[in-house]
Amino acid sequence: MIKINENYLKLPGSYLFSTIAKKVKAYQEAHPDADIIRLGIGDVTLPIAPSIVKALHEAVDEMGQASTFHGYAPDLGYDFLREAIAKADYQERGCQIEADEIFVSDGAKSDCGNIQELFAEDARIAVCDPVYPVYVDSNVMAGRTGQYDSVSGTWSNVIYLPCTMENGFVPALPDQVPDMIYLCNPCNPTGTTLTKDELKVWVDYANANGAVILYDAAYEAYITEEEIPHTIYEVEGARTCAIEFRSYSKNAGFTGVRLGFTVVPKDLKSGEASLHDMWARRHGTKYNGAPYIQQKAGLAVYSEEGRREVKEQVAYYMRNARTIYDGLKEAGYDVVGGVNSPYVWLHTGEQTSWEFFDTLLDKAHVVGTPGSGFGPSGEHYFRLTGFGTYENTVKAVERIKNLKK
Amino acid sequence: MIKINENYLKLPGSYLFSTIAKKVKAYQEAHPDADIIRLGIGDVTLPIAPSIVKALHEAVDEMGQASTFHGYAPDLGYDFLREAIAKADYQERGCQIEADEIFVSDGAKSDCGNIQELFAEDARIAVCDPVYPVYVDSNVMAGRTGQYDSVSGTWSNVIYLPCTMENGFVPALPDQVPDMIYLCNPCNPTGTTLTKDELKVWVDYANANGAVILYDAAYEAYITEEEIPHTIYEVEGARTCAIEFRSYSKNAGFTGVRLGFTVVPKDLKSGEASLHDMWARRHGTKYNGAPYIQQKAGLAVYSEEGRREVKEQVAYYMRNARTIYDGLKEAGYDVVGGVNSPYVWLHTGEQTSWEFFDTLLDKAHVVGTPGSGFGPSGEHYFRLTGFGTYENTVKAVERIKNLKK
Repeated sequence: MIKINENYLKLPGSYLFSTIAKKVKAYQEAHPDADIIRLGIGDVTLPIAPSIVKALHEAVDEMGQASTFHGYAPDLGYDFLREAIAKADYQERGCQIEADEIFVSDGAKSDCGNIQELFAEDARIAVCDPVYPVYVDSNVMAGRTGQYDSVSGTWSNVIYLPCTMENGFVPALPDQVPDMIYLCNPCNPTGTTLTKDELKVWVDYANANGAVILYDAAYEAYITEEEIPHTIYEVEGARTCAIEFRSYSKNAGFTGVRLGFTVVPKDLKSGEASLHDMWARRHGTKYNGAPYIQQKAGLAVYSEEGRREVKEQVAYYMRNARTIYDGLKEAGYDVVGGVNSPYVWLHTGEQTSWEFFDTLLDKAHVVGTPGSGFGPSGEHYFRLTGFGTYENTVKAVERIKNLKK
Repeated sequence: MIKINENYLKLPGSYLFSTIAKKVKAYQEAHPDADIIRLGIGDVTLPIAPSIVKALHEAVDEMGQASTFHGYAPDLGYDFLREAIAKADYQERGCQIEADEIFVSDGAKSDCGNIQELFAEDARIAVCDPVYPVYVDSNVMAGRTGQYDSVSGTWSNVIYLPCTMENGFVPALPDQVPDMIYLCNPCNPTGTTLTKDELKVWVDYANANGAVILYDAAYEAYITEEEIPHTIYEVEGARTCAIEFRSYSKNAGFTGVRLGFTVVPKDLKSGEASLHDMWARRHGTKYNGAPYIQQKAGLAVYSEEGRREVKEQVAYYMRNARTIYDGLKEAGYDVVGGVNSPYVWLHTGEQTSWEFFDTLLDKAHVVGTPGSGFGPSGEHYFRLTGFGTYENTVKAVERIKNLKK
């Protein structure tokens, strides 16, 4: 008999967004006239910005000429992009990150999913609860999470850090010491944030305990408030304890273009072993570099025109998020997020997350994401996103407000 | 202290091609006038074909318009590409493979590296020797290979299947039963092949022993002889024991574009568990789909014009391979490959692979790849590739012939 990785069989059900897609499809088939508005998945809707489209065309032309053709890219990324990233995203913010600490990839989801490979099989993870499902699921596959309790929706060997209205969505330090701490800031799904001071507590804790912070900053471009750090390397001490994931999906609309990067500082060490070198080795062995075309598009994000254009896109989505936030607040919902994030997180009251999902779909023809899909503490919460069109967002908010009447 | 995956520390030295690049760079710096010809790495040199460039531009334009913009792709690939693949690469060859058994990805290297995750930690691998280093290295990282013996260049828990002149480069069935069998056909690096009958022996063996064949068919487009199968699914019984990896890198010049796919038949099961479902779950959890732009380029490979153009490119490289093969043979080298493969594999005689590498670089200014870098049985062999320009290939062959004079 084929010897499989039995950890895969422990994963309950299918991926959250597949379940939603199936439910919506069934509803649409049963109600063909329903004008359904999708504010569920975190996918962008605006087209790629003109200066980036131009860069893509230029790169395609280069690939079509022998003299400018590019074969295998450097595994870790082209210098032109790594240097632009180090300068614009780190050095200009006063963070000491060098170009050779940047690892370009096909996106933050791959990197967030693969990073756990660098850690021991008995390393213990801590995750905010609720949280982006990839962190836990990728560790389930690696056998680090123990057994699943379908009643509580928890894994026996995962340290959960509840983030709810009660603690203002700021996780408390855990009683047991984890080896890997996943933090997402601004947080997906809650849209809430940790300030620099709140993050410093975690950096100090990680350094004191030999833990690594796996810091997902995919929503950094949505930060509007001064005290929220754009990168963990704004916090002193992060170079010895933190890996940061970044994405072009949400700041430049690259969900279908696929480009991201991960920062592994050279100071991140376990005894003599360098996690930077380990991640480089993983890239070299199991990855063949991000496409030249995409890396040129990434470079265009940093041009003067590119910066202006993507800023406008973010502003568009943030107007939507604000519209949702204000509308729900006005209707009497308890709601957070929407200020430094395209996500709005609301309390569903007496209803469970999935009951609210069904109500919203049936009565308002609006699709959102049930909070319980992001972890047990997400129960009785619900996520809406600012990634729709403005017109649809306004319409959806009106419908949701009418539900309360 | 940070709890790392200590298996990474077992990996000897750096990746083969990095070592070569460093050696060549040092030589070029010491001999700035040397006209070095690179026939080492398996990277293509011809630009992307016109009809594919056109498809890329069209897809870029679609991404730049709201009405045709594409966000997240389906994790497993767009139906348009999966259907084209199933039809052209399988059904037209009489193989029963359906579109939903095709998993589109960013390339065969990622898939070959990641596939081992589906198997148990104590699953035992067998590899042809010599072989593409990714198969072994990715299993080293997962802790399946035991300890490394730097004298023999072997891992204690890997079953090696020597492929040398002595056995005509056809591996014999092993004494011990492996759980995972990596086969590359046509073989990288030797350029040799298994016929359908020879492959049938392995399919029957795998089915009889509960083993899985991980079949790398990245060089399928270079096959010219009738009895060599283009896919393992031409062999009866393969649907219950084989996973196949395919790439657009070598048939359409996509080394820098990045696109490939993997076939996991629904009949591949371990008891109730479906490896097809497991791989789908991996894609859904740790991958976010291949870019729309690249998948449209992939589709163009199957158009009438695209097929004609990429066929011409393959023919160009094959003329090079034939030139190397004939030239070396004429000069008195023992040589194989070059007929169903862009790779030519020659015996270095008394010299070790690396001695021959140094001689060739120093006396002929030609870069090749030392056979020992692909496994212990690659010692005293050397790989040259047909991926250079024709002019350089002719020049390189003349220089190598002169060495023998």
